[in-house]
Amino acid sequence: MTSYFLGIDGGGTSCRAALADSAGRICGRGKSGASNILTDPDTALKHIAEASRLAFVEAGLEPDLASVCAVLGLAGNNVGDAVNYVKARLPFARADIVSDGVIALQGAIGDEDGAIGIVGTGTVFIARHEGRLHSVAGWGFHVSDLGSGARLGQLALQECLLAYDSIHPMTDLSRAILAEFAGDPENVVDFARLAKPGDFGRYTPKVFEYAEKGDAAAIHILKTGARGIDEALDAVNTLTRSTGRLCLLGGLAPLYPPYLAERHRNRLSQPIADALTGAVALAVQTYGGAKGIRAEARA
Amino acid sequence: MTSYFLGIDGGGTSCRAALADSAGRICGRGKSGASNILTDPDTALKHIAEASRLAFVEAGLEPDLASVCAVLGLAGNNVGDAVNYVKARLPFARADIVSDGVIALQGAIGDEDGAIGIVGTGTVFIARHEGRLHSVAGWGFHVSDLGSGARLGQLALQECLLAYDSIHPMTDLSRAILAEFAGDPENVVDFARLAKPGDFGRYTPKVFEYAEKGDAAAIHILKTGARGIDEALDAVNTLTRSTGRLCLLGGLAPLYPPYLAERHRNRLSQPIADALTGAVALAVQTYGGAKGIRAEARA
Repeated sequence: MTSYFLGIDGGGTSCRAALADSAGRICGRGKSGASNILTDPDTALKHIAEASRLAFVEAGLEPDLASVCAVLGLAGNNVGDAVNYVKARLPFARADIVSDGVIALQGAIGDEDGAIGIVGTGTVFIARHEGRLHSVAGWGFHVSDLGSGARLGQLALQECLLAYDSIHPMTDLSRAILAEFAGDPENVVDFARLAKPGDFGRYTPKVFEYAEKGDAAAIHILKTGARGIDEALDAVNTLTRSTGRLCLLGGLAPLYPPYLAERHRNRLSQPIADALTGAVALAVQTYGGAKGIRAEARA
Repeated sequence: MTSYFLGIDGGGTSCRAALADSAGRICGRGKSGASNILTDPDTALKHIAEASRLAFVEAGLEPDLASVCAVLGLAGNNVGDAVNYVKARLPFARADIVSDGVIALQGAIGDEDGAIGIVGTGTVFIARHEGRLHSVAGWGFHVSDLGSGARLGQLALQECLLAYDSIHPMTDLSRAILAEFAGDPENVVDFARLAKPGDFGRYTPKVFEYAEKGDAAAIHILKTGARGIDEALDAVNTLTRSTGRLCLLGGLAPLYPPYLAERHRNRLSQPIADALTGAVALAVQTYGGAKGIRAEARA
């Protein structure tokens, strides 16, 4: 009888599952809806099971969730209550819940030492050195995640108010953003007061777009953001002795490199595989008896 | 028969009133409770009337609110609905509601041209040039008020997380702040997620205290804040052609000067009088037939 292993990559918009045999070969995949264990754990459980069944079906197998061991990489895994609630209700033989960052690291750098920086609406950096995982930044928008999409968008709104007040020169970027608020700074303030990180992040593509055209304010904002990323990467390099693969992941990963310090830009490489592949690999390692590195991370 | 004029300085913690004769001589003062017209307009109205009656009493006069003209400097005066609600219910013969900044300006620089910077939990800069008022910054914590107490406190919390992650060196300031959160960065994050500007601002005295002891992180934070203040003062100087009195007011006014650019530090002078005195002066100017400058400002 063949043993199968499940990897799950679950987040706020979708849940993806991959089924692999004990050699780690993926034989089926499935996708379902949101699996946010913090805001709606029951729906998350439903979608985790649904994506898993679809992976069995794609593999040409009768779905038998109770027979498999799984590793789930879930956003929000740092909140103990939610994890305990979900873990107690999972349909699998055995299961481990890790952070979305841990499966992304495994996918991107495989079993070797190395590090990733996830730069999207937020930022987090994860390094593996001699098998140990270390997490840097990722504390969220309010007091961390310098250089994240949310922070860049916030800086862009701030910049347009500075320009409105003639504290900074008015540039095309500030003019374009102010125009989106009907030219009224009060509208910017009203928006910012209630804005969530993702709301600020919606202005970030504009910053990259105008920086490419040479807009001084946009370039200044990106330099500020890049300094935040560079400093976090320096901390990561200290942890890893600058050895192994270094990958940027997340929505801003393709955009940031031209603005980063050369010492980092020159070390960046493409991820080996995606986070779902990382989750499957961890499932095989954790439960397959394969010689592997057990995921350990903050949270 | 003598005409009397009332000045009111109302805010979130107290309401102060001063009664003056037509020459602007203050003959009585009164103080009551909070007068926040946004959050509790009815209580604000009650406290405005109470402080006014006490000013009559101190002047040895029978309270006769319906006989006086008043100028009220109130925080939250930029929200039209609240102003209209309160204005329609004031007990005075005639009354004008202006911002707290406008009465502070009048008190600090009198009738001449000049400017003030109010640096407290938030910041706002008001300049008068050839009789016209101009407001700079003051859009609030989320996308403005660089260098404000709220921003400095937020930077201090951010700095202690950067130090925790070894992105920046751990200094005494970061160690002290982290200790207030039981050494657990999660506690910092939880606090920051719900913190209001005043909550962040509570960490600001610590920043000045440690900067004075030479703490590198504290000095860096204050330099960042001071750059924000310097740039706003540059914008103010452009408006005023660097003429007239320049005063810093607010809780951080005594602390900031050593960190400001020399070009600003050398121009700072003490305010002539306080905001309440400014409100009375504006009441006499506005309603007393005296040759005066009518307050006009954004909002």
